[in-house]
Amino acid sequence: MISQGKQRIVWAQAHMPLHCMLGERFAQRRPLAGQRIGVALHLEAKTAVLILTLRAGGADIVAVGSNPWSTQDEVVAALREADGIEVYARRGETDEQRQANLQRLLDFRPAIVVEDGGDVAVGLAERGRGAAPGLIGICEETTTGVERLKELHSAGRLWVPAIAVNDARMKHLLDNRHGTGQSSWEAIMRATNLLVAGKTALIIGFGWCGKGLALRAAGLGARVLVAETDPVKAVEAALEGYQVVRLPEGMSLADVVITATGRPGVVDLVALEHAKDGALLANAGHFGYEIDLPGLEKRASRVEEVRPGVHAYELPDGRTLYAVGRGELVNLAAADGHPVEIMDISFALQILAVEHLLSRGAELAAGVYAYPEGLDAVVAEMVLATLGGQSRS
Amino acid sequence: MISQGKQRIVWAQAHMPLHCMLGERFAQRRPLAGQRIGVALHLEAKTAVLILTLRAGGADIVAVGSNPWSTQDEVVAALREADGIEVYARRGETDEQRQANLQRLLDFRPAIVVEDGGDVAVGLAERGRGAAPGLIGICEETTTGVERLKELHSAGRLWVPAIAVNDARMKHLLDNRHGTGQSSWEAIMRATNLLVAGKTALIIGFGWCGKGLALRAAGLGARVLVAETDPVKAVEAALEGYQVVRLPEGMSLADVVITATGRPGVVDLVALEHAKDGALLANAGHFGYEIDLPGLEKRASRVEEVRPGVHAYELPDGRTLYAVGRGELVNLAAADGHPVEIMDISFALQILAVEHLLSRGAELAAGVYAYPEGLDAVVAEMVLATLGGQSRS
Amino acid sequence: MISQGKQRIVWAQAHMPLHCMLGERFAQRRPLAGQRIGVALHLEAKTAVLILTLRAGGADIVAVGSNPWSTQDEVVAALREADGIEVYARRGETDEQRQANLQRLLDFRPAIVVEDGGDVAVGLAERGRGAAPGLIGICEETTTGVERLKELHSAGRLWVPAIAVNDARMKHLLDNRHGTGQSSWEAIMRATNLLVAGKTALIIGFGWCGKGLALRAAGLGARVLVAETDPVKAVEAALEGYQVVRLPEGMSLADVVITATGRPGVVDLVALEHAKDGALLANAGHFGYEIDLPGLEKRASRVEEVRPGVHAYELPDGRTLYAVGRGELVNLAAADGHPVEIMDISFALQILAVEHLLSRGAELAAGVYAYPEGLDAVVAEMVLATLGGQSRS
Amino acid sequence: MISQGKQRIVWAQAHMPLHCMLGERFAQRRPLAGQRIGVALHLEAKTAVLILTLRAGGADIVAVGSNPWSTQDEVVAALREADGIEVYARRGETDEQRQANLQRLLDFRPAIVVEDGGDVAVGLAERGRGAAPGLIGICEETTTGVERLKELHSAGRLWVPAIAVNDARMKHLLDNRHGTGQSSWEAIMRATNLLVAGKTALIIGFGWCGKGLALRAAGLGARVLVAETDPVKAVEAALEGYQVVRLPEGMSLADVVITATGRPGVVDLVALEHAKDGALLANAGHFGYEIDLPGLEKRASRVEEVRPGVHAYELPDGRTLYAVGRGELVNLAAADGHPVEIMDISFALQILAVEHLLSRGAELAAGVYAYPEGLDAVVAEMVLATLGGQSRS
Repeated sequence: MISQGKQRIVWAQAHMPLHCMLGERFAQRRPLAGQRIGVALHLEAKTAVLILTLRAGGADIVAVGSNPWSTQDEVVAALREADGIEVYARRGETDEQRQANLQRLLDFRPAIVVEDGGDVAVGLAERGRGAAPGLIGICEETTTGVERLKELHSAGRLWVPAIAVNDARMKHLLDNRHGTGQSSWEAIMRATNLLVAGKTALIIGFGWCGKGLALRAAGLGARVLVAETDPVKAVEAALEGYQVVRLPEGMSLADVVITATGRPGVVDLVALEHAKDGALLANAGHFGYEIDLPGLEKRASRVEEVRPGVHAYELPDGRTLYAVGRGELVNLAAADGHPVEIMDISFALQILAVEHLLSRGAELAAGVYAYPEGLDAVVAEMVLATLGGQSRS
Repeated sequence: MISQGKQRIVWAQAHMPLHCMLGERFAQRRPLAGQRIGVALHLEAKTAVLILTLRAGGADIVAVGSNPWSTQDEVVAALREADGIEVYARRGETDEQRQANLQRLLDFRPAIVVEDGGDVAVGLAERGRGAAPGLIGICEETTTGVERLKELHSAGRLWVPAIAVNDARMKHLLDNRHGTGQSSWEAIMRATNLLVAGKTALIIGFGWCGKGLALRAAGLGARVLVAETDPVKAVEAALEGYQVVRLPEGMSLADVVITATGRPGVVDLVALEHAKDGALLANAGHFGYEIDLPGLEKRASRVEEVRPGVHAYELPDGRTLYAVGRGELVNLAAADGHPVEIMDISFALQILAVEHLLSRGAELAAGVYAYPEGLDAVVAEMVLATLGGQSRS
Repeated sequence: MISQGKQRIVWAQAHMPLHCMLGERFAQRRPLAGQRIGVALHLEAKTAVLILTLRAGGADIVAVGSNPWSTQDEVVAALREADGIEVYARRGETDEQRQANLQRLLDFRPAIVVEDGGDVAVGLAERGRGAAPGLIGICEETTTGVERLKELHSAGRLWVPAIAVNDARMKHLLDNRHGTGQSSWEAIMRATNLLVAGKTALIIGFGWCGKGLALRAAGLGARVLVAETDPVKAVEAALEGYQVVRLPEGMSLADVVITATGRPGVVDLVALEHAKDGALLANAGHFGYEIDLPGLEKRASRVEEVRPGVHAYELPDGRTLYAVGRGELVNLAAADGHPVEIMDISFALQILAVEHLLSRGAELAAGVYAYPEGLDAVVAEMVLATLGGQSRS
Repeated sequence: MISQGKQRIVWAQAHMPLHCMLGERFAQRRPLAGQRIGVALHLEAKTAVLILTLRAGGADIVAVGSNPWSTQDEVVAALREADGIEVYARRGETDEQRQANLQRLLDFRPAIVVEDGGDVAVGLAERGRGAAPGLIGICEETTTGVERLKELHSAGRLWVPAIAVNDARMKHLLDNRHGTGQSSWEAIMRATNLLVAGKTALIIGFGWCGKGLALRAAGLGARVLVAETDPVKAVEAALEGYQVVRLPEGMSLADVVITATGRPGVVDLVALEHAKDGALLANAGHFGYEIDLPGLEKRASRVEEVRPGVHAYELPDGRTLYAVGRGELVNLAAADGHPVEIMDISFALQILAVEHLLSRGAELAAGVYAYPEGLDAVVAEMVLATLGGQSRS
């Protein structure tokens, strides 16, 4: 298992040229020497490369998972045993285990937390101001996490500066659009072996992720429906050529339903009443609560895993609905997560944000900060330098 | 001529449902009664509908053109003679005439200026603080104009609040992307009767307009090259599947070159040296200075209008380059400008901004203001109500 | 008018590189010296270049129009007066005039007829075997014409060999798909100044033309519906991501309706009952009989030309429907027809077919012949030699 | 293993509605009762459903694999043990084993052979006319197989009628375009976890498969290059907006190279010399001989499987090239083959062809026959009946 995990890490590393560039600089200058960094991310191969690059810069690291179903145990094993990193995570871990692991990360007293989804920030808010004595700042990866940070700040419960890495132009333009778009569809194709062309796909939420999901749906030959509550985004979707629908209408037409709203229970039991027999249900938002699968399970006469990662819910009314990836982030639950190059970019942004907070964080008041514009351009220039067959003056 | 102009206005009106809704409210409540509004826009049919809607709300209006090559004389005639609007503009007017007209607009002492490109704002800045005694505020339509306003404000020479209507989400997502995208290509096809499929198109500038130009180029079957100096936007273009190039390389490959940067002389004589024999040159940015056609004319052995709106520049080295629409905004110089529905939306945003400034402008300090978020949603809801075959909960 | 027509011909010639190559060979070798060629095509600038190229090869030519609404009088004038070609055609000519012109073409006793739509072949069949004494063969340009030729042949009334130039791979892959696709949409945009993005477009018929219309509709941001009676083509449309509909359903959803079936009365009064208020109606098939506009006119309370080439039909039930280009081939009736490069290819195929019939036609029995495979490749190689930025080993 | 294979078969069956319809008819009427059918296809779940449907119609069946790397052992086990089907195949079987299995199939004396690639037909030709005494006819699934059949027929060595199922309109429009297009890219994404957007993809061969590969490459955000020796197809590719290249130029630009030509050694060592460091190499043609991987292996200093199904070839010049799926059909070697619905259609065509040959084959001379037009429409109507959210009159 270790060797399988190591193999994946090596493959990722070979396709993360920005981390290679950063790793070379880090190995020479050790800018993070002695700094404690807490990592709470999806623990798969690309995250491992981030962790190893941070360590190459001299950092001490404790890592936990940000979602119990995205953790890849073989990668965790390789990090622990081949690389000696302190990792607390297991695929399918219980809520109690997650909380215990989170506590371990806090006990480590990190100077910087790099996280995905905001659970550490929320955990800190719950524990009160003194819970993280040496903490300088937080780097947050996702739309969901940034929204939670802003809520904490509004409520006066964010004690440190936090950088909205998600809002870097290089992040949401690429990660949410291209990363989520490609990898979610790849996961659905892999899990089901079904054809996308000619299918009707309902994308719920037309934010950065939803836009990517719709783009790739169309690119794979699907007819695209969009359900979106923000009227401006709904108009935007209509002008892209997608059919804007209300949720019940969309559910009744869709062969594939994908959520990307960040909001719990968007596809509730009422919406599921409208779903077609045979519909595929998947979630591309950070948390696994957008589709009410627990509720559906109660209503079902039978639930069975019919292909790896695909659960059939047989309903008393004769319909069968299929959940792909248990309603968790489908690209991580049923495939290998974002494409390697996307995480190379997103984590390069994280690394520069970590450096930025270490050098400037002490001057900053608590709050949620935009990603520094200049660092965005630095990463963009690195990408342009590596893009095959592309050049620019 | 009047009847031809009137016919165009009637057609536009029939396809501007938002103006119909606003016009009904205005006719009943007359919220602009007695207010002076100065309009400096492209004077064609859709602008005429805006002007007539403002007047239906009770406003007194003086209008001038914002670009000498976008003025449609028959529309001006219809506005003047059929509708009794005070208009000062003529297609192909000289700089002196433009300045005289601008002065007339200022002499009118408008409370609000609705403009496109910022010439009024700049004219005011040149004349000094006292030049527009009753002015409450400015509504600016374009990226270029907003940038000029910000420069004026930085230089301490913007005396009133200005609303960046261009930055409304409903504006740049729709007008710049879909309006410029469709209408610029339509103009090029109309002017040249040439095939787009299989051609190599170079889009210079990957802002909102450039994105729309690239999207439609691909949609029409062209191979798309993008030249862009902002590295983040360059990466974005590459991930859309476009080939990112340096300007000289792009010029040497392109059959069609379109500028959308807002910056003067982007395609200078050095760049034109690289252009292919037979290349088409067009501009989709606000001002006609992005391609150095005056310089090219000096260098040419012969310049001839070979189709309406298409000038051939025969060069001593044997190449012939074709300028479409004289290097001015190609969709207005060689076609009818933005599609009607786009201007229905953009001008509905303008009307709400005018109302907003009239009711709140007196409280606001000089400066450039974001478009009020709530008004964006109001317009979006109006659009959704009219969208054929689309619905939303 | 002559000079305007001449200008268009010169422009076309400059963008028809295949005709330049063929013209050079023809001028040197005069392979058509003394041959009589009858041309019955859409008389606009590109056709003029074909005619002039044939004459450069030594042919004597009489030309008539193939559709009264596609004739461009200024091009006819230029051909007649500047170039001394015998042409009988006038825009909007009556049926009697057309028949008289057709008779003139037959009286000329052509050895070869190059035509578009099959009217000459049908006229010959009606007149009986002796009507065209010296005729060697026919070259037919369109799907419609080829179908009529096959019907004539089945009925034993085709007296000579005819080459289905339409069925050349270089013809339907390019002309019908790319030519019709681009130019029909350009004509609709030009005639209406309306936005395509966000509209619902119904394409009736999913043959080569329909595929091109759907491709460009999607490329311009429309949501695409397809009505098609052949189940195989209907499945094909569905898998391209288009929504396959029955005609009444499609009519009730569509903002723009385009016919491309080759069959009369496809959009009859029953179908028009389902049309939405404000719908645009256009035809991209060869004949102007696919939409029952004469029937609609009878039912209308008022018919008015509201923009050049756009007629509003106000119906007693309150709806207004708009016909673009009078229901005739919309790209010719409301714009300049196919893009120049497309006709360069299609007419190069014609020229090679003319040469082929002159050298081999006497050996061939009456019947409809496939386009000679080798000539297809000859034209393809010529195109590849001219394609900007493209290369091939 | 049996249960895993059975689970896959059950999943496929649930998503093959045409086979359900056919299976119901077969179970009632048993039209194949007592007929011997030899199956030589890719042995995975969808093929199993075909086999089980044929058996439901009463047929006796012997099955062998058509490619050693596409056989899924768990499906073979399930067919054998759960369903009692006689199957001779094993993943990775040697050439000797394949030949022995092929002999077993011939010894079974099938009345009909359903095959993929033409190996049975070639085997029969090698063995001489008497080798298959009761054989009525052959149904061939692929372009490659049809070409081989035609060669055999030209050489006078095809003894029975063969139906080119591949040439059914419902086959190549769907299977080659949509099946190969989607599943090959899914396999590459799955095997590598790399991003497609922004990559440069070289498609070698622009036949039905190549068109599908190019379409999905563009749909996933790649920049598409096409190498094609047929000039007509090359022009077609150029007009779709792809960049037509010569092979060496294409190899030097491409991040991903996919072959779909049906010809051996298209990507030879000379071509591989031009490949970029890090390039991915995959094959979507029937046989695993399009890329010279054996030659590359000899030249390599090291070959290692770096992810499941991905082999790294480290070359003395410092480049590393990655072969995905061993150069075999990538969708079968690195994923689950065509999407289920595609095989539902293709195999429904096969079943109708089998019935057709059984009822009419005895009347037919040896030769390669087009797919019966009427049966194509029957299958198309079945598909339309099942298409979600689609309707047609």
